[in-house]
Amino acid sequence: MINELGRQARAAGRVLAGLTGQTKRELLLTMADEVQRHVSPILSANGDDMAQARSEGVSGALLDRLLLTEDRVRAMADGLRSVARLPDPVGMITGGWTLPNGIRLQRVRVPLGVIAVIYEARPNVTADAAGLCLKSGNSALLRGSSFALRSNTSIGAALQVALTSHGLPAGAVQVMEDTSREGTKALMQAKEWVDLLVPRGGPGLIAAIEADATVPFVIDGAGNCHVYVDAAADLAMAGRIVFNAKVQRPGVCNAAESLVIHEAVAEEFLPGMARRLSEAGVELRGDERACSLADELVPATEDDWGTEYHDMIMSVRVVGDLDAAIDHILTYGTGHTEAIVTNDVSAATRFTREIDAAAVMVNASTRFTDGEQFGFGAEIGISTQKLHVRGPMGLEALTSERYILFGDGQVRQ
Amino acid sequence: MINELGRQARAAGRVLAGLTGQTKRELLLTMADEVQRHVSPILSANGDDMAQARSEGVSGALLDRLLLTEDRVRAMADGLRSVARLPDPVGMITGGWTLPNGIRLQRVRVPLGVIAVIYEARPNVTADAAGLCLKSGNSALLRGSSFALRSNTSIGAALQVALTSHGLPAGAVQVMEDTSREGTKALMQAKEWVDLLVPRGGPGLIAAIEADATVPFVIDGAGNCHVYVDAAADLAMAGRIVFNAKVQRPGVCNAAESLVIHEAVAEEFLPGMARRLSEAGVELRGDERACSLADELVPATEDDWGTEYHDMIMSVRVVGDLDAAIDHILTYGTGHTEAIVTNDVSAATRFTREIDAAAVMVNASTRFTDGEQFGFGAEIGISTQKLHVRGPMGLEALTSERYILFGDGQVRQ
Repeated sequence: MINELGRQARAAGRVLAGLTGQTKRELLLTMADEVQRHVSPILSANGDDMAQARSEGVSGALLDRLLLTEDRVRAMADGLRSVARLPDPVGMITGGWTLPNGIRLQRVRVPLGVIAVIYEARPNVTADAAGLCLKSGNSALLRGSSFALRSNTSIGAALQVALTSHGLPAGAVQVMEDTSREGTKALMQAKEWVDLLVPRGGPGLIAAIEADATVPFVIDGAGNCHVYVDAAADLAMAGRIVFNAKVQRPGVCNAAESLVIHEAVAEEFLPGMARRLSEAGVELRGDERACSLADELVPATEDDWGTEYHDMIMSVRVVGDLDAAIDHILTYGTGHTEAIVTNDVSAATRFTREIDAAAVMVNASTRFTDGEQFGFGAEIGISTQKLHVRGPMGLEALTSERYILFGDGQVRQ
Repeated sequence: MINELGRQARAAGRVLAGLTGQTKRELLLTMADEVQRHVSPILSANGDDMAQARSEGVSGALLDRLLLTEDRVRAMADGLRSVARLPDPVGMITGGWTLPNGIRLQRVRVPLGVIAVIYEARPNVTADAAGLCLKSGNSALLRGSSFALRSNTSIGAALQVALTSHGLPAGAVQVMEDTSREGTKALMQAKEWVDLLVPRGGPGLIAAIEADATVPFVIDGAGNCHVYVDAAADLAMAGRIVFNAKVQRPGVCNAAESLVIHEAVAEEFLPGMARRLSEAGVELRGDERACSLADELVPATEDDWGTEYHDMIMSVRVVGDLDAAIDHILTYGTGHTEAIVTNDVSAATRFTREIDAAAVMVNASTRFTDGEQFGFGAEIGISTQKLHVRGPMGLEALTSERYILFGDGQVRQ
């Protein structure tokens, strides 16, 4: 099963790798049109998925994520159009020089080949992931949730119509029908066929991939992000940044989970900050010194320091100096995003040098770690690993490089 | 055990990450001096290793690789000196721009943290790997062969004297005493401590890592390299390139294992080439058409096409056109290095675009895929994987990147 899908994906990938940027752009625009043209079958398939999910007791946010509407289908198509407009990541010469023997060397950005995406019950990811894979010259093997299988298959069929109309193999985008645990494990271990596996889901999916995957993957991991308010912070600025980092969208990975305050400013800063956060509905869990400074705090446990709440909760620690702040963050952080608020150049320098995270902010909210904000146009996720790609992943994360050497008969001595 | 080593490596890594390029350069020069100063204990330890290896029946090339001499110790020290002189890979700004909201973004090259190296019975790798890790700001956890344990420990002690004399933690370079299978597996799975595992060894080691490792690793895989002689080749040049690629050093991964010839030139090219290779001692295994053109060939089996001989053997295939050549190479190649000899621009263009390998050569020997040849100064290996780094790995392969963002109070709307 996986071998047949893999073979088709591999063969299609070879065709995609040779496409010009213009062809890929036109292909994605056709894909967008076909998704909109197929709105009726897509909504009908989604209706069936919704009915079954309801009958199996799915409700709330999960059910809402599964739901497609005419507007959501249009948004899916518009997403494809905006990826279509991005510059082609393939073919860029990322370096080049001439060897002493006269061989001209180029390092060129090339597609990876076949990208597998495992995602949860959000059918829009089907179009989204397919668009990103094709734009970067790769085939897509898409394994969504069993709850969304009819929706995903219907969207996949629309995308395949677009491929066929451009004379391209339908194997370039394949929605996997087998969403069983065994089928998914086979995909995670299809080393012959899968060049990169991108998980788009929660901690359960990440854990499964870390346990079972033998194909290369990039992890979009947890964000236990801190804001450190230094002794030399502009406290009004610190208040705005902490509030924004915690409250503006608490459910995302670049929201702050923990506030670390230098003791020199804790007494002045924390009471007002605690009141403001508390009034906004944030539950505050502090260490002993923090708790002694503001009534809004309850005592934190050791577990709090390492927890990504994804919620209106924040841990608060008062530290004696910058070293203690850095130690705390290196101990409990997840290497996603860490921020310092300070006007002290040397504190900012040390923080940016010593904090080992994908993104380190000086005097800015942690919420800016984001492909859109960074200007990548599209984001596949935010890598918390150190190899291949770190931080927000744009189209380049879906490519590799190749050395091309042009000689005129050189041989090695 | 691994936890204690890991903790020390991690702590030392934090110190190393903050060192200036000048300090690292001086450190490596001191390491070189200390290795030479410790020549007696190193040779004595090596003598014990050699005696035990002999008593266990080790002989030939394996024993020669284990042997250290005064010259080899000096070469080890000189290797450290040449790495010392390389530019510091850390701190390079690899990109940067200003976001629309005024935040200034920089992408900066940073150390990975802790690098584990697993290698076979070549004690010189101990100094070599330690030098590369430290130069790139990383701690080194070195697991060599049990045959070389005394030698490695002695070299490690010399390196630690250098570290201590610079006021740096000895945990920055640790030679693992536990070379058991269990100890090695624990290292391969020490996700909390190991940021990158670099295997330096043969197919057995690679297979063990692919089976057991859960830490990130970069594979230096097989090189089943082809030279394709196109219809439009300069046949004299083709002869020089094929001969060099096969014969100059047949035991290495960038040597050619297979010759693919366009049928239009096979009759003119193959008889002379076969004679020349055969006279040099190369055994030739051909398909039916190749065998019909030269007496030196014996029939190849299907297994031959996929075999990296590492020896004076070469498979030979005659193909009908460029498509068949590309198909053959994509089917049997290992993505290491592939070469075309041609004067036809469009054939060269198609070959470089469609052949999915770390390095693609036009009119040059496959033997040039090499960090030294590429100008990297030092080489940790040649990556045959597509993620993180592909092709020859210099010091940059031992680094990651970090985004640093400088704002003046920006918050997300």
